[in-house]
Amino acid sequence: MQKYGGTSVGNIERIRAVARRCLATQRQGHDVVVIVSAMSGETNRLLALAKQLSELPSERELDVIVSTGEQVSVGLVALAIHAEGGEAVSLLGHQVRILTDSAFSRARIKEIDARAIGSALKDGKIAVIAGFQGVDESGNITTLGRGGSDTSGVAIAAALKADVCEIYTDVDGVYTADPNVVPNARKVSRISYEEMLELASLGAKVLQIRSVEFGMKFGVPIHVRSSFNDNEGTWVVPEEKAMESVMVSGVTATRDESKITLHGISDQAGIQAMVFRPLAAAGIVVDVIVQAYVQNGRTNLTFTLPAADLARARDLLIKQCGHLCTPDQIKAETNLSKVSVVGVGMRSHAGVALKMFEILARENIGVQLISTSEIKISCVIDEKYAELAVRALHDGFDLDKG
Amino acid sequence: MQKYGGTSVGNIERIRAVARRCLATQRQGHDVVVIVSAMSGETNRLLALAKQLSELPSERELDVIVSTGEQVSVGLVALAIHAEGGEAVSLLGHQVRILTDSAFSRARIKEIDARAIGSALKDGKIAVIAGFQGVDESGNITTLGRGGSDTSGVAIAAALKADVCEIYTDVDGVYTADPNVVPNARKVSRISYEEMLELASLGAKVLQIRSVEFGMKFGVPIHVRSSFNDNEGTWVVPEEKAMESVMVSGVTATRDESKITLHGISDQAGIQAMVFRPLAAAGIVVDVIVQAYVQNGRTNLTFTLPAADLARARDLLIKQCGHLCTPDQIKAETNLSKVSVVGVGMRSHAGVALKMFEILARENIGVQLISTSEIKISCVIDEKYAELAVRALHDGFDLDKG
Repeated sequence: MQKYGGTSVGNIERIRAVARRCLATQRQGHDVVVIVSAMSGETNRLLALAKQLSELPSERELDVIVSTGEQVSVGLVALAIHAEGGEAVSLLGHQVRILTDSAFSRARIKEIDARAIGSALKDGKIAVIAGFQGVDESGNITTLGRGGSDTSGVAIAAALKADVCEIYTDVDGVYTADPNVVPNARKVSRISYEEMLELASLGAKVLQIRSVEFGMKFGVPIHVRSSFNDNEGTWVVPEEKAMESVMVSGVTATRDESKITLHGISDQAGIQAMVFRPLAAAGIVVDVIVQAYVQNGRTNLTFTLPAADLARARDLLIKQCGHLCTPDQIKAETNLSKVSVVGVGMRSHAGVALKMFEILARENIGVQLISTSEIKISCVIDEKYAELAVRALHDGFDLDKG
Repeated sequence: MQKYGGTSVGNIERIRAVARRCLATQRQGHDVVVIVSAMSGETNRLLALAKQLSELPSERELDVIVSTGEQVSVGLVALAIHAEGGEAVSLLGHQVRILTDSAFSRARIKEIDARAIGSALKDGKIAVIAGFQGVDESGNITTLGRGGSDTSGVAIAAALKADVCEIYTDVDGVYTADPNVVPNARKVSRISYEEMLELASLGAKVLQIRSVEFGMKFGVPIHVRSSFNDNEGTWVVPEEKAMESVMVSGVTATRDESKITLHGISDQAGIQAMVFRPLAAAGIVVDVIVQAYVQNGRTNLTFTLPAADLARARDLLIKQCGHLCTPDQIKAETNLSKVSVVGVGMRSHAGVALKMFEILARENIGVQLISTSEIKISCVIDEKYAELAVRALHDGFDLDKG
């Protein structure tokens, strides 16, 4: 099972390279199933066409249009394999039958029929499968959301009980931090699904988060590696097999965060629902939520959200929460960053949070909000300190030493 | 039922115009089904991508790739209809279920399921259907060959028992001759299927020939008209309804014809099969065949073929018909044109052939070969006289007078 992203099939030369790699794998005695994305730039070209017609295009029709990107790719990859002397057959979402729900543009896979793929493999062919796309019960074409080809790859690997799902991309693997920020960031050779999930949700763009969920749920080992060389990449595997049980596996930072604080509002029952219902209805995703300083029945409620949604969220609160607070009580702040350290080792090591606060304090970086999970600690800080914080944490937790 | 060609959906502005026309038709109280081609240039762009990988690409994969052109078009037309305030749903070949045989790149329609279209219409929606594509019994994507969207349109109109199949194109209708050659050529308001079939097979490129066959077989009136204005075009209808029962309906000329004559070969039984079997096996289409001058058991066999196939055909005959004739006996000639007059009126009017020969003789145009059908007379002449012949015949048969 190999999955290739858009840059890996970005032009005819690269498509030929993909074909050669598939055939090399086949010659080693493996059955080869390859999942491909649209050629890089193609999805955006198609979206731009649609946007010329409508600001809010029908998601059903948008899926019909953008799914053609992968359709062209699978045809070309199959032709390239033929040209290199191999046998291959392309399969679209509705031909494999990758059954999804009907949530166009963000569909979830319900079931994958492995028979069409199996019969291609039995004939000695390489099965070339369109990523990102599926079909619902009524035969409508659906897509899985941006980066959905990763999810297709892992889900198909699970359905086929494949030995491994190799995700070929334009980076060498998963790093302890963004190498552009931290020059001595180190490639991680093994990482657990849980850690990868936290890293993915914290902005590391190597793997789509749902693909990691699938891998974890069905126990598919995922190997993230570069399509431009033969180096080993990063294996994403069950926790017991993740050998590097260090305290912290990686450091990430998100950007363009903002926060809203409702000051001194009445601490009545159900107040949180009153605040967050209008935001959810408007599709605004709220991240860290902190409630504090209860005094005389009054409380401060603070939450973070993407900066792009800030103005809209503020307007909604002013309009719909007038009974809770005046506009003056709603304070908005932007240019924030969420810096996080992730590691399954935290479960057994006390003091990771303390160490994180000490490192940030040493650099005089003020922490505005804190959020923790079992294997992650996040601090919301002023965005201008984000890179400094990542470097200091990477050094402080000795991540360059492995 | 409206079908739009590639130039009619060639850019976003034209797609909007298509949407407005569909909605105008719907407001007149009609159920509207629209068949669309790929945006002009798109099919060639996709073919060029494939050709970079392989000189002789797999036709199955080619169909997967090129069918995306229509897929993008239907999505965009549906979005355009939404943007104009209408309701529409796109349907691909496998979603309608346009069942074809498995002859990739030139598939023939076997059956059309009208249910998905019917249910869209029942919901008050405009059904926007991808032309040119279908699906075989195994779920493989097929295409119907160049111009196949016309065939899709007429076949779907037949399946739905539509009142009319309107074919929107970049010309105003069917003319008595090519207006570029004959300035006073006249638009024909009604023409019979039989005449249209002859015209289509003689090089008039307004309609794909198989679409006319479908129209005839199922009695679907076809209205060929321009997508750039509201003028009435040409109605292609059963013969009894074709009001203009003139002797001749149109004049056409094909170009780039060539001919081969086998001189003085033995007139033994089965000789024609011996000559044409190797050509058919090589996919060379032979057109007019004339056999003459039988003397002492010797005969001359002459036939025409596209100039592009001439050299290959000559080589094949030399190699495989050595027992029939020497290379010296095989004469090839090129730069020929086949000029034809077509009209159902010929059936009841004697002397059309004579009149044609007289008109050509008056212009000193030598006729090399003659071929006739019930409603058509063709003369093979020197190509340099083709335009002169068309003009002379158009005038001689008073086609400008209607």
